[in-house]
Amino acid sequence: MKSLTINQIRVGDFAENKKAFTKADVFQFAEISGDYNSAHIDEDYAKTTRFKERIVHGLLTAGLISSLLGMELPGKGTLYLEQNLKFLAPVYFNQEITARVEVIEIIDNKKVLLKTTCRNPEGVLVISGNALVYPPR
Amino acid sequence: MKSLTINQIRVGDFAENKKAFTKADVFQFAEISGDYNSAHIDEDYAKTTRFKERIVHGLLTAGLISSLLGMELPGKGTLYLEQNLKFLAPVYFNQEITARVEVIEIIDNKKVLLKTTCRNPEGVLVISGNALVYPPR
Repeated sequence: MKSLTINQIRVGDFAENKKAFTKADVFQFAEISGDYNSAHIDEDYAKTTRFKERIVHGLLTAGLISSLLGMELPGKGTLYLEQNLKFLAPVYFNQEITARVEVIEIIDNKKVLLKTTCRNPEGVLVISGNALVYPPR
Repeated sequence: MKSLTINQIRVGDFAENKKAFTKADVFQFAEISGDYNSAHIDEDYAKTTRFKERIVHGLLTAGLISSLLGMELPGKGTLYLEQNLKFLAPVYFNQEITARVEVIEIIDNKKVLLKTTCRNPEGVLVISGNALVYPPR
């Protein structure tokens, strides 16, 4: 697991990961978070929605971002301060999502502001936002 | 599962839920999100951190908020547009967290802005932020 201190981080540094969330992943997230929203769980209900299918929880998809911050950039020891998320498009089961975090500002030589995105296989932004973190000391 | 349309929602409406996240919940979230950040997983490593113990993933705790929005207020059929999160204090394993969502603005008779918080048993804010949603039509 990587670990970068503030002096090793530059504007423009980035990291990416990928995952296709399965039905099992979504049901597990429902169980551990208590979020059994029908849009994620109930196949018949989902057919009546604008998305026509069940979709992955937004906060589960955003877990890919959290993973990059805590394991890659800055990595182990990172303290998560803020995360802003816009949910722009649905994420369907078994659709490979690519998450990316990119350093956009280093603040007071202490905090790092990153642009955080998730895209579907067509390159459509499904989540956009920013994260603010303290890198490990 | 409740479901409120825009005309049934008033500023000041609120909903709450509670959960204590277990070690098993945290390990499951690591598995489904890929976020195996040592702060959540590695007991020996966690002892060396400022928090002294492993902590629950911020996005897993925030799942309580997502759950309230999709199941209670506005409820089934809610479309999640935005979620801003400030992670203000650590959440430890087996610590009962109370999440609350409260309507603070109804925008253009279409969207609902809610204040979203999570508190630990001492009443300390562990997460604060806002959510923007479309209620079911």
